[in-house]
Amino acid sequence: MSKIDVRADLKYEVRLATVFVFQIVAGRTEHQSVIWEQLEIDPQQTVEACRVGLDGNHMHRIVVQPCELRISYQANVLLAPEINRPTSVGESNISEMPPEVLTYLNPSRYCQSDLLARFSFEEFGQSQRGFSRVQAICDWVFKHLDYTPGSTNSWTTAADVLLQRIGVCRDYAHLAITLCRGVGIPARYVAGYAVGLQPPDFHGFMEAFLGGQWYLFDPTRLAPISGLVRIGVGRDAADVSFATLTGDALLLEKTVWASPSDFSNPPDLSSGDQPALSTA
Amino acid sequence: MSKIDVRADLKYEVRLATVFVFQIVAGRTEHQSVIWEQLEIDPQQTVEACRVGLDGNHMHRIVVQPCELRISYQANVLLAPEINRPTSVGESNISEMPPEVLTYLNPSRYCQSDLLARFSFEEFGQSQRGFSRVQAICDWVFKHLDYTPGSTNSWTTAADVLLQRIGVCRDYAHLAITLCRGVGIPARYVAGYAVGLQPPDFHGFMEAFLGGQWYLFDPTRLAPISGLVRIGVGRDAADVSFATLTGDALLLEKTVWASPSDFSNPPDLSSGDQPALSTA
Amino acid sequence: MSKIDVRADLKYEVRLATVFVFQIVAGRTEHQSVIWEQLEIDPQQTVEACRVGLDGNHMHRIVVQPCELRISYQANVLLAPEINRPTSVGESNISEMPPEVLTYLNPSRYCQSDLLARFSFEEFGQSQRGFSRVQAICDWVFKHLDYTPGSTNSWTTAADVLLQRIGVCRDYAHLAITLCRGVGIPARYVAGYAVGLQPPDFHGFMEAFLGGQWYLFDPTRLAPISGLVRIGVGRDAADVSFATLTGDALLLEKTVWASPSDFSNPPDLSSGDQPALSTA
Amino acid sequence: MSKIDVRADLKYEVRLATVFVFQIVAGRTEHQSVIWEQLEIDPQQTVEACRVGLDGNHMHRIVVQPCELRISYQANVLLAPEINRPTSVGESNISEMPPEVLTYLNPSRYCQSDLLARFSFEEFGQSQRGFSRVQAICDWVFKHLDYTPGSTNSWTTAADVLLQRIGVCRDYAHLAITLCRGVGIPARYVAGYAVGLQPPDFHGFMEAFLGGQWYLFDPTRLAPISGLVRIGVGRDAADVSFATLTGDALLLEKTVWASPSDFSNPPDLSSGDQPALSTA
Repeated sequence: MSKIDVRADLKYEVRLATVFVFQIVAGRTEHQSVIWEQLEIDPQQTVEACRVGLDGNHMHRIVVQPCELRISYQANVLLAPEINRPTSVGESNISEMPPEVLTYLNPSRYCQSDLLARFSFEEFGQSQRGFSRVQAICDWVFKHLDYTPGSTNSWTTAADVLLQRIGVCRDYAHLAITLCRGVGIPARYVAGYAVGLQPPDFHGFMEAFLGGQWYLFDPTRLAPISGLVRIGVGRDAADVSFATLTGDALLLEKTVWASPSDFSNPPDLSSGDQPALSTA
Repeated sequence: MSKIDVRADLKYEVRLATVFVFQIVAGRTEHQSVIWEQLEIDPQQTVEACRVGLDGNHMHRIVVQPCELRISYQANVLLAPEINRPTSVGESNISEMPPEVLTYLNPSRYCQSDLLARFSFEEFGQSQRGFSRVQAICDWVFKHLDYTPGSTNSWTTAADVLLQRIGVCRDYAHLAITLCRGVGIPARYVAGYAVGLQPPDFHGFMEAFLGGQWYLFDPTRLAPISGLVRIGVGRDAADVSFATLTGDALLLEKTVWASPSDFSNPPDLSSGDQPALSTA
Repeated sequence: MSKIDVRADLKYEVRLATVFVFQIVAGRTEHQSVIWEQLEIDPQQTVEACRVGLDGNHMHRIVVQPCELRISYQANVLLAPEINRPTSVGESNISEMPPEVLTYLNPSRYCQSDLLARFSFEEFGQSQRGFSRVQAICDWVFKHLDYTPGSTNSWTTAADVLLQRIGVCRDYAHLAITLCRGVGIPARYVAGYAVGLQPPDFHGFMEAFLGGQWYLFDPTRLAPISGLVRIGVGRDAADVSFATLTGDALLLEKTVWASPSDFSNPPDLSSGDQPALSTA
Repeated sequence: MSKIDVRADLKYEVRLATVFVFQIVAGRTEHQSVIWEQLEIDPQQTVEACRVGLDGNHMHRIVVQPCELRISYQANVLLAPEINRPTSVGESNISEMPPEVLTYLNPSRYCQSDLLARFSFEEFGQSQRGFSRVQAICDWVFKHLDYTPGSTNSWTTAADVLLQRIGVCRDYAHLAITLCRGVGIPARYVAGYAVGLQPPDFHGFMEAFLGGQWYLFDPTRLAPISGLVRIGVGRDAADVSFATLTGDALLLEKTVWASPSDFSNPPDLSSGDQPALSTA
């Protein structure tokens, strides 16, 4: 159990009337709750809060006239993950998966699991089933990619990354998700805040469906699993952009920040045999 | 209003224990109802009916031991489409779309609307907004592609098709969906049965979200809009495969068939100024 | 007939022993001669001048130990293009093309003419044959692409550009070359210097084989055809990098410059009905 | 030293006047000579023999009016390969390679060595330099691909194959060539005849430039290296199609055949520690 303070400040130059859809607010699950939060928009706007997609991601939609727009979100989030021993977490059989999970076996924009199925099966088809297979996939991704800011763009797919061997957090997550789906493990993208991320920014990581629930993984190893605060989930990054704009506006500043607030009980930052965590 | 008989017969050689997830059953909406239906499986199996995805597609999951498996589905479907004059159907503003529709603006596996956005905007950005813009997109797709069975495969995307100018029904639908999303019109893939399709097979077409509801389009012009019976919808064909298999089984036969049953009131087969139809 | 001064200054930080192959020296043809030139390398190196590829591109190979390396090339180049009326320049029939030209009908790394053949044929198959068809292709490329520095990278192909509708000079040339090959017109990439280019840099343009010889085209319209000084030619940009490095060196500065030196007879800068120029 | 009989019979239905460019005739090198050959065309045509490309591939160009066209080529070819012990064959340093070889380090249509350079370097950058590194690359390709007729098409690239892990001889050669170039070893595609190929057909294999000359490799292991008869070489398959057509003609039959004719001295068919062979 830990408490984490998160914060995001965005500043835009809005040139024409623009519709913004933001996804920056911490999600609510059985294992992640929001103790306190505040969303400030300057100048003030009529904000429509809505839930979108299969998993009810929290979005905020506003229509803004030309101005300098500032959005500031702060929250104190309580994480009470379910913790399991990795060796006790097996794979779910496709015949028993909850139907709503099946969607996360499908290929998606950046995760062409159909295209990479042979590769995935060849590389991980014989791995021991369960948590350790997803861990093996994440280890492989970590080992074979170079983390290089600016090396990829919003069009870059898991297939591109597998060839080019270079990318950023979203590319790492996309490739790991794709390889999981390729061996029949449902996997999805999680956008969120991450304690200790350098440089601070929004983070992209992933969840795999094992033993009847969603477990967190971060193939970048840039942040401790216990310090990951979810905003929303989706098939891949296409579903969880922090901001989607229709109109004409320029992002001038983005400041993102996450830090443990409950110092008597900080998140476990050790990188040893980390336990299996579920916060979904 | 029309009644349509649909039928699908599938035969598999099941070599190892295999999990099948079928999507062959007619969907239910306000405008499409099932008067009568029958799903037969030989040899008999325990069938789990489930609803999957944002739109609750009807799936049937069975676990089959090695055998020769036959699946037969028959139904009599009542279509009572809402019919509007095309010129009265405008576009929805993104600031007012129902939140659940926003998902269908996102790029997906076969519909890389992010990648084709400039193309789409250049080609259709200045078209008159509304039903006629989607019609213009479908006309463009019809005009520029060669319908050629066997020319594409399950990996082929809208971007591939735009370059290669050749494809089948799913490719036509993918490209039209992608171009719609590219100009800000939510669009989704529909799998279904189609009256008059030659050769008879499952069909792939599309819906665009206009004036607050989903309208049917078929850029292949291979079947009358009024003869389209939906099975399910999704972001693209990845979500609505008629069968997804995990195990080892070979499709031996597939027979698909659709025909108007209510002869006093057949579907409108004329290809003139067809009305805007919604059956979602 | 015009004289053009060209100059390129390059500065590298050489960190490990590195093999450089430079292509920066003005080419020699029947219609392009070098009146005066100077290649300076500091610190002094043993330079191997060599001719590479089908068209004997001039390359200079040097092996450099760690240092700060400066390369400076200056030349005064005489252009005496063969000038023809566009309407008199027809297409060569493939049955009569010189055999060495056939290679330039093949697809290449960045010019996948096989992939875009249908597109090309559909768009330009009915155009009037001859110089005006290549002009129509270049006009199409100019009209449909946005010239945007930094929008593409060294992996970007003509197929990418056709979808994304954005690029720089090499992308413009690649797309035009690809579309020419797609309708059976041999076309090749030319790297060179260009009078009036803003900002000054090396330039990439193209030649198409028409009426028995190679004619110059520049779909970017960034420089007058009469101010194009060739360095070398190839199937696409892969063959004419200004520098290829094996080792470890960082480009610190690049200054490129071209200007007409014979003021009594400047290159024709008008953009009207420009004549067909051949300098190959 | 061995003698090999090769034969190719092609039959076309020529529907409109068509220009054919054939590449089916055995090449001539220091180590491959043609003892006897015959090219028959029925009905008789005016044949233009020509040499195309950097390596002077033998082509035959004919213009054919509508008819049923038969081309038959037979030859008895003497192979006198230079044979070396693999361990004695090192890599050439780029500073010392003959200039004309540098071209074969460039990426090409089907061999995007720029795109796969990181992959190649990661996988083979630390391998022992020399013949054994190319052998390691070919072994890797053999091990990771499934040889599956019909699985790929004429658009399939080395990058596609690396992802999909499936292909035919040309795909095997393309991937191995690409990986060689990726670690700085010049490599090129060879089209030819192959003793023992099942089913008999034209074959695609490769050469790598090592120790100052071109050595033969066949990552498919479908034929003995000593039974490979070259037709021509190129950057990839784009340069050595057995037939290129402009017009309208349909290939009705293709029969290809190769067999050792000098029985007292058959090619070495053992697959053990095979020697390094050069026939270029």
